[in-house]
Amino acid sequence: MNNILVIGAGRSATALINYVLKEAAEYGWSVTVADADPELAAKKIDNHPNGRSAWLDVTKNNDRQDLISRADVVVSMLPAYLHLEVAHDCIRLKKHLITASYVSKELYQLGDEARDRDLIFMGEMGLDPGIDHMSAMQKIHEIKEQGGTITTFRSYTGGLIAPESDNNPWHYKFTWNPRNVVLAGQGTAQYLEGGKYKYIPYNRLFKRYRSINIPGMGEYEAYANRDSLLYREVYGLKGIPNILRGTIRNKGFCDAWNALVKIGLTDGSYPIHDSDKLTYLQLMEAFVSGQKEGSVREKIGTLLREEPDSEVMQKLEWLGLFRNKKIRLKNATPALILENVLLDKWKFENDDKDMILMQHEFEYEIKGEKHLTLSTLIMKGSSIDDTAMARLVGLPLGIFVKFVMLGKITATGVNIPVLPEVYNPVLEELKNFGVNFTESTKQLK
Amino acid sequence: MNNILVIGAGRSATALINYVLKEAAEYGWSVTVADADPELAAKKIDNHPNGRSAWLDVTKNNDRQDLISRADVVVSMLPAYLHLEVAHDCIRLKKHLITASYVSKELYQLGDEARDRDLIFMGEMGLDPGIDHMSAMQKIHEIKEQGGTITTFRSYTGGLIAPESDNNPWHYKFTWNPRNVVLAGQGTAQYLEGGKYKYIPYNRLFKRYRSINIPGMGEYEAYANRDSLLYREVYGLKGIPNILRGTIRNKGFCDAWNALVKIGLTDGSYPIHDSDKLTYLQLMEAFVSGQKEGSVREKIGTLLREEPDSEVMQKLEWLGLFRNKKIRLKNATPALILENVLLDKWKFENDDKDMILMQHEFEYEIKGEKHLTLSTLIMKGSSIDDTAMARLVGLPLGIFVKFVMLGKITATGVNIPVLPEVYNPVLEELKNFGVNFTESTKQLK
Repeated sequence: MNNILVIGAGRSATALINYVLKEAAEYGWSVTVADADPELAAKKIDNHPNGRSAWLDVTKNNDRQDLISRADVVVSMLPAYLHLEVAHDCIRLKKHLITASYVSKELYQLGDEARDRDLIFMGEMGLDPGIDHMSAMQKIHEIKEQGGTITTFRSYTGGLIAPESDNNPWHYKFTWNPRNVVLAGQGTAQYLEGGKYKYIPYNRLFKRYRSINIPGMGEYEAYANRDSLLYREVYGLKGIPNILRGTIRNKGFCDAWNALVKIGLTDGSYPIHDSDKLTYLQLMEAFVSGQKEGSVREKIGTLLREEPDSEVMQKLEWLGLFRNKKIRLKNATPALILENVLLDKWKFENDDKDMILMQHEFEYEIKGEKHLTLSTLIMKGSSIDDTAMARLVGLPLGIFVKFVMLGKITATGVNIPVLPEVYNPVLEELKNFGVNFTESTKQLK
Repeated sequence: MNNILVIGAGRSATALINYVLKEAAEYGWSVTVADADPELAAKKIDNHPNGRSAWLDVTKNNDRQDLISRADVVVSMLPAYLHLEVAHDCIRLKKHLITASYVSKELYQLGDEARDRDLIFMGEMGLDPGIDHMSAMQKIHEIKEQGGTITTFRSYTGGLIAPESDNNPWHYKFTWNPRNVVLAGQGTAQYLEGGKYKYIPYNRLFKRYRSINIPGMGEYEAYANRDSLLYREVYGLKGIPNILRGTIRNKGFCDAWNALVKIGLTDGSYPIHDSDKLTYLQLMEAFVSGQKEGSVREKIGTLLREEPDSEVMQKLEWLGLFRNKKIRLKNATPALILENVLLDKWKFENDDKDMILMQHEFEYEIKGEKHLTLSTLIMKGSSIDDTAMARLVGLPLGIFVKFVMLGKITATGVNIPVLPEVYNPVLEELKNFGVNFTESTKQLK
């Protein structure tokens, strides 16, 4: 095998592209980076002798298939809904496929065809999902090999701003897809506690956060993800009484976000009338009524049961939601208007450093003794061009590409990285890039 | 024209069928009532010499088209999503079509074809939508003819239990589709107040009810419908600063329903794990967590910020939500479980009387003077077989069928009953059935 194709050259692909170019130089491979913006692709290649850029409109079947036909391994950094077309091409043209996205039901259905052709389709090979799977599985298998029974698995991840770049009252900036942050949690969160299924509807999700302590960093908040039950079987944890996956935020975030939810600003399902003609204050006014007395700010305070100078009200104020400034977006949903506000206020500046926090909690019994192990990853980026987020999404992808290119992967079909032959070498090599989990274990009474 | 076809013989069709049979005897028409249950259809015909029943599986195109081909006017009492097939048949076979359902976009698109064939397709010809349109339009046209400018139009309707049959703490029983009651209001309510658009997200809808007074009946609660802005143009009220459509409930209902929303029991989007093995108490427990102390009931109280013996908590208690009784429904969503509880607790008994309340509020200016007119309809049913709901849905349909049969309707195309040539004779004849709006007007300062 000689040729690697990376489709998509956006910010999240930088660490991946740098990694595979370096390995390509070592092994004499050729790397093609294809993007709708050929200049962006060329910039990422940066005249590397083993790289070349290509212009690709992925909706053009012939162009896409032509590029894929000339590769051995394809990495798709496209938005998740575009993977399936690429996957069908890879089946037909007999190419391996690797992505960082959640594996859809439709993609899983290609498993037999991929296996019949000795292909590996690896999904969820980024950070979350990705490194979370690998690091959790390594520990789960280790505990089981010691004869342990796992009674609790909780796993939290957060893409945050590093403390040294944290200069706003929300203690948050966008280090990843803003749309996903605004719409996060819609639906109902499901998890297990004491052997019982628990449900948190969206309207209470950000009230029901829990406090978690990250050793060396301090207290954070975590709200439950929708999908805590998804991986029970794949992880070999069927029957476990406590399982939860959550998202980490800084203290004070959840209460303030809950206020935005309650007002109605995270709803992306309908457009605000005349949104381009309204000011932010008028938008807020549109969400209150029935109270005759007081300013819009006071009415919002009443609606939220917040004191006028509470931290939550101060955070809303800081976003400029009570200002008479025009929204200037046509036909926009509340969620889009909010996203636009946040894009400005939570802007990640060029010199900002981001920070990834990941923490697993395992409670388990071995020979009648109960233990709690915390396994914690803390990684900071150095700037907008080298975020911890892009590194931790791109490096696992790149490392896995290398192992496939070297013929070291025997698994076939559609997979996520829960097999020892995958997670052991990938986690091992990730250590060279500073991806180290710190473990602490204490005995429980 | 000689033949009327009624598709659907359910409870809501009784008053309609009785009416058209009586008129058929008068005019020598023939009425066919078709249903998937031929015995039900025969029972509704009750050996009337002008009636005959037919068995019809509406998904069978040939059978359906055969019946339609032999009719002049078709009334579809099918669930709304099935109207479109019937409408296409009516276009092809050149038949008039009348329904009580909201006119869908797809149905509106058949307007030109219907007009070209001199057919009338009349939708929204029941109670709400139906009588609400007709009674409002009659008053709106009257005010305009007097040179008035309408500044406020609010319209409320409720299908309730009559006071003499009201024997439960919710003061509500099912007199219509239970599913629609459980899912009511999901989405965002939109209306106009003081010339400004207002939005109420679902999570605050039942907190934001208003009190309304129905002359002769007393105080009720009304929550905003999703669609208050829909009819502004059709009603000729473009530019009106205040418009609201709402649903009437008895006092105390909205706070208690809000509790069900907040807990998460109105969500129909996901199944509860092992729902057939849980008790109601265990289901409630699944919606609380994080609080270590106290009973499930106490935890729910805390979540709702309700005192242990508040009216809301008593209403939940009365539903049996804190009982250790099995749910016995497989793979059920919270909304389905709730519907099932309510079907039992809010059961409409054979001798119960239902009651329809409808009230329009018009504020308008004529020659510098401001007026408020209330127009109120109160109608009670006599039993389960003769509900006010079925009468008020069926009679307008039946009366309009008669006028079409007699060739008195000149309008063609897809319509809703906002034209004087439609609403005037229908409202006039409805008076013979006790459908009388009481009007009161006072001058405003």
